[in-house]
Amino acid sequence: MRDFSTNHHWLSINTATLRRQKGQEVALDLIIDQCAARGVRAISPWRDQVAAVGLDKIARQLKALNIELSGYCRGGFYPAADAAGLRAALDDNRRAIDEAKTLNAPCLVLVVGALPGALQGKPAYKDIARARGEVRDGIAASLEYARSVGMPLAIEPLHPMQAAERACINTLEQALDLCDELDPPRPATSDTGRPADLGIALDVYHCWWDPKLESQIARAGRARATRLLAYHVCDWLTPTRDLLNDRGMMGDGVVELRKLRGWVEAAGYAGYSEVEIFSTLDWWQRPGEETLATCIERHRSVV
Amino acid sequence: MRDFSTNHHWLSINTATLRRQKGQEVALDLIIDQCAARGVRAISPWRDQVAAVGLDKIARQLKALNIELSGYCRGGFYPAADAAGLRAALDDNRRAIDEAKTLNAPCLVLVVGALPGALQGKPAYKDIARARGEVRDGIAASLEYARSVGMPLAIEPLHPMQAAERACINTLEQALDLCDELDPPRPATSDTGRPADLGIALDVYHCWWDPKLESQIARAGRARATRLLAYHVCDWLTPTRDLLNDRGMMGDGVVELRKLRGWVEAAGYAGYSEVEIFSTLDWWQRPGEETLATCIERHRSVV
Repeated sequence: MRDFSTNHHWLSINTATLRRQKGQEVALDLIIDQCAARGVRAISPWRDQVAAVGLDKIARQLKALNIELSGYCRGGFYPAADAAGLRAALDDNRRAIDEAKTLNAPCLVLVVGALPGALQGKPAYKDIARARGEVRDGIAASLEYARSVGMPLAIEPLHPMQAAERACINTLEQALDLCDELDPPRPATSDTGRPADLGIALDVYHCWWDPKLESQIARAGRARATRLLAYHVCDWLTPTRDLLNDRGMMGDGVVELRKLRGWVEAAGYAGYSEVEIFSTLDWWQRPGEETLATCIERHRSVV
Repeated sequence: MRDFSTNHHWLSINTATLRRQKGQEVALDLIIDQCAARGVRAISPWRDQVAAVGLDKIARQLKALNIELSGYCRGGFYPAADAAGLRAALDDNRRAIDEAKTLNAPCLVLVVGALPGALQGKPAYKDIARARGEVRDGIAASLEYARSVGMPLAIEPLHPMQAAERACINTLEQALDLCDELDPPRPATSDTGRPADLGIALDVYHCWWDPKLESQIARAGRARATRLLAYHVCDWLTPTRDLLNDRGMMGDGVVELRKLRGWVEAAGYAGYSEVEIFSTLDWWQRPGEETLATCIERHRSVV
């Protein structure tokens, strides 16, 4: 297992973590400058943050600062109320893949979507099996294009408490079953060790509770082309006061971070540990410098 | 599948649903009278509600009104910070079993517990595998006594969002694995159809999202002695504003209630459909008569 205690070489900052500082929205180019000033080597930005500044401007800034991506957030949200909606989702995912290419991301993270309209409080239907079928078909379609341009897709299983609104893929086992179905291992031995076309983004927040987590991480590692495309950290607070935006700083909750990273690394993962904290009540109220300094300190001491 | 549309013969009221009415705590004997007045044949009361009125008094009232139990809430909370705590939990579960016998309950529902102290915001440790081991050992000990007095134990898998604080058994598969380990099917053919010594209480709120729900319900039905000891309904709201007390009335959320009851009945379940709604912001603010009338109406129209 890699020693993180002496530097933050393998720290990536998901830029949602610094999206709000002292309660105010902060532009992505400023966030990137803050990360560069602290020697952060990688980030994972969100599409809306990139769009607000401009894709080309962000691409140039990252290149100039020698900052790479640990992932790009996000594609997905496939299920829709009607055929036009399904087509629009595919088009949007194609644009997301193109943006990920422009930014030289190692993968596009997929928050796959769930019951259409549920996020707005008006689900168009309740049939979660139908949503899962639409997710399957949508990923299959995106995968064809993603393969053609060489952009791996990383399914992020989301916590079951977000199954209605954000993602109907809710366990690592379920995500890996879908990977095996849509992207079966190929016979070529040259696959060994390279990223799979379709893999997973593992976020400890969503998966820490899963009794099958250790065995499924090991399964992900046994794939010839690695399914482990991204690793996200934060912490689960007790109590958790909000279903979306009350994530904890690493070390402040109950997730066994060192143990989980051990499992992931034993399965062959050697990439960044990406900090993704949504925190309306706490970290988003603090100065960005404090949040970033704490991410670095905790990366070294508890991740 | 049974037809619920013409009566509420198979409706049970979990008395937490009526615990608060117009924002005020209501005593269990009054709740029971309300249920009796509406022709409700079964309830599932909570230990603290019973204790506040008196066990013998409640037992007499239920007998006089010819109301039976669909379950007794609850045993469990096995993990503890030290050996004294573990022993105290076992003693308390023995008392819960005795109370369930006095009330002639068909099963004692187990909310098994999780990281000790987490419910108070101070987890004594973070090792969820250790908590799961303590739960296993605790249930094994309780089961010995429960068998001797003939009280089935029903493990209730809780939603993963409650894995830190209330129950570290979070999927039906995990619960059934534990049932098979601690209460393996016995060769006697006389077991067929009788309740297992150790089974599960299936609450749609906790399990609706699970991609393996249908297959695991079928598995529960294949056991010689049925594992399906209780069936709880409410609904999952979008948005859900609180991790514990924002359950919806049946029909107001996204759970496919008719489909799920179909699976449960296909697996052999023929007992009550028990309404359990914790709702600080909505139903607990309304008059009890309104809540109860709505439970009856929805039982007939959507459950």
